Amino acid sequence: MKAKVHVFLKPGVLDVQGKAVEQALHGLGWNGVEHVRVGKTIEFDLKSGDKAAAEAEVKAMCEKLLANTVIESYRVELA
Amino acid sequence: MKAKVHVFLKPGVLDVQGKAVEQALHGLGWNGVEHVRVGKTIEFDLKSGDKAAAEAEVKAMCEKLLANTVIESYRVELA
Repeated sequence: MKAKVHVFLKPGVLDVQGKAVEQALHGLGWNGVEHVRVGKTIEFDLKSGDKAAAEAEVKAMCEKLLANTVIESYRVELA
Repeated sequence: MKAKVHVFLKPGVLDVQGKAVEQALHGLGWNGVEHVRVGKTIEFDLKSGDKAAAEAEVKAMCEKLLANTVIESYRVELA
């Protein structure tokens, strides 16, 4: 099973990387760009037949390692 | 218009971050995890009415700044 985890900073947390990218884009002339947010996407294969069990497992991985749940939120996709 | 850019290392390029995450997950007992790949997702608002023009513009941003096209590939989503 293919798992995809999208990790983004929670709204309200200053996205320093996003600000830097936004300023760089403006500096290159793309002034129509606003509210840039930069996040992580983690993809992997998971040996698990059962989708519900796999979802629970991936959520546990997020809580433990893949996301810093104090400042980040995550979304799990299974395919 | 909402733009989303997914940037991943090209196949064949060693994903050091992915390897580190994979080993950490194995260390925590999740041995069913394989082929971990870590990428970036950049989201932003774009002041542009026309979808085709916006797509071309975002691709130009990727080529110029958002992706290192020597080792990374990117995918653009517009909504």
